[in-house]
Amino acid sequence: MNFYVMTLFPDMVEQGLNTSIIGRATEKGLLSIKAVDIRAFSEDKHKRVDDYPYGGGAGMVMAPDPVVKTCAYVKSLIPEERREKTKVVYLTPQGETFTQKKAEEWAKEEDLIFLCGHYEGIDERTLEMVVTDMVSAGDYVLTGGELPAMMMIDAVSRLVPGVLNNEASAEFESFQDNLLEYPQYTRPEEYEGRKVPEVLLSGHHANIEKWRREKSIERTLAARPDLLKDAVLSKKEKKYLDGLLEEKKRQEEASEASENTDRY
Amino acid sequence: MNFYVMTLFPDMVEQGLNTSIIGRATEKGLLSIKAVDIRAFSEDKHKRVDDYPYGGGAGMVMAPDPVVKTCAYVKSLIPEERREKTKVVYLTPQGETFTQKKAEEWAKEEDLIFLCGHYEGIDERTLEMVVTDMVSAGDYVLTGGELPAMMMIDAVSRLVPGVLNNEASAEFESFQDNLLEYPQYTRPEEYEGRKVPEVLLSGHHANIEKWRREKSIERTLAARPDLLKDAVLSKKEKKYLDGLLEEKKRQEEASEASENTDRY
Repeated sequence: MNFYVMTLFPDMVEQGLNTSIIGRATEKGLLSIKAVDIRAFSEDKHKRVDDYPYGGGAGMVMAPDPVVKTCAYVKSLIPEERREKTKVVYLTPQGETFTQKKAEEWAKEEDLIFLCGHYEGIDERTLEMVVTDMVSAGDYVLTGGELPAMMMIDAVSRLVPGVLNNEASAEFESFQDNLLEYPQYTRPEEYEGRKVPEVLLSGHHANIEKWRREKSIERTLAARPDLLKDAVLSKKEKKYLDGLLEEKKRQEEASEASENTDRY
Repeated sequence: MNFYVMTLFPDMVEQGLNTSIIGRATEKGLLSIKAVDIRAFSEDKHKRVDDYPYGGGAGMVMAPDPVVKTCAYVKSLIPEERREKTKVVYLTPQGETFTQKKAEEWAKEEDLIFLCGHYEGIDERTLEMVVTDMVSAGDYVLTGGELPAMMMIDAVSRLVPGVLNNEASAEFESFQDNLLEYPQYTRPEEYEGRKVPEVLLSGHHANIEKWRREKSIERTLAARPDLLKDAVLSKKEKKYLDGLLEEKKRQEEASEASENTDRY
């Protein structure tokens, strides 16, 4: 799979993705990551790419021409038959929120182009001309689109066959069946007085699996109850969740009752 | 403000944050970013930091000892009077979702420590021992915690006074009043047949402000209607939004009606 990143900071993107798993996959030829410097396409003698916003206001706006020319260059690197359908993703808090589902969709593409904004954003006409998808990493503001682009490349890359050494790793993990991951333990059996839960040492696979699923359900309920409505649970697991919910309700009622007592 | 990142890839973190705005703020002494290599604290002769999970399963788990020792070292770098209260943030999809509000909270801290997991995560006891906050960049899975840590450092750093050249930039931007940002335009006035909206060239400040607010409302309604319930709107703006909502409803009804007609 080929990633192209249009950016003012190509070194940041390439260096940030050349270590670890993604770096190894690039060496193996499973991925290619090319960062293209937007500044190189500025025709200004000082290589400026930004200018004052029309209508006034703080900050600077990235001008149309360098971005449009960078995009034309990047597209010229993609074989003609795939060029038209290649997504050009602009990173912006105004976009659709990136999720694992989007990563799975994108992992099926052969090429993916990212456009990283800086300053107060990019001239709107440019976005209309070159961008196909607006995507946000989350509800927060960053100095530029580079880090979210790198993060999305990481999330997509690990789903590309062969990138993770252990194929199973991509499947058996966070969000499986819409549940959070169970707690993990490794040696030593006791560390600073803290022991590994006995069931994990029992060698009894069915019990281990049951314990792990229950922990996943407990954690999801505690940290991300919103995920539970789409969770895939067996009948027994549903019953376990119902038990937890009843227990939670009882505790809430008890704490409300004690608050009322305290008040008077 | 001082950031510490406990990681297996210290170069990735330091290189990825030494460019652009964050790099300049570091040079100016407004920020310090120190990445500490967890592997350096492994007492294994091969400097291994991971081991098989108890109870079986794919992948490897980061062992307690190197992480606990790295954290003790990092804490020793923080003045004693601040050491106890310093947050240790573990990046995990199981954490609370990072938002701009969290960035604003963290920007008030003097020190912030991040712990980046790899492989199938970190031994649970370690997390119990050293971590104070579990935070997630969003609902997606990454190969490690480095990129979300870098992203959070970026989001927090730009709120530290002096980091952005233009103080106003941190305020007048995405999410102001819980609305998405209005479209921006810069020179030329016409690019490839596309013109800058006339109002922005008018010099009429009140009209420009009105147009921008209306565009923000339109975009928020189109892309992120969930934000509108907490949006801060004037009476006139509320009326404008109501008009958009009625129009939207009319269009939906019309398209339903035409679907029904098509069907018969």
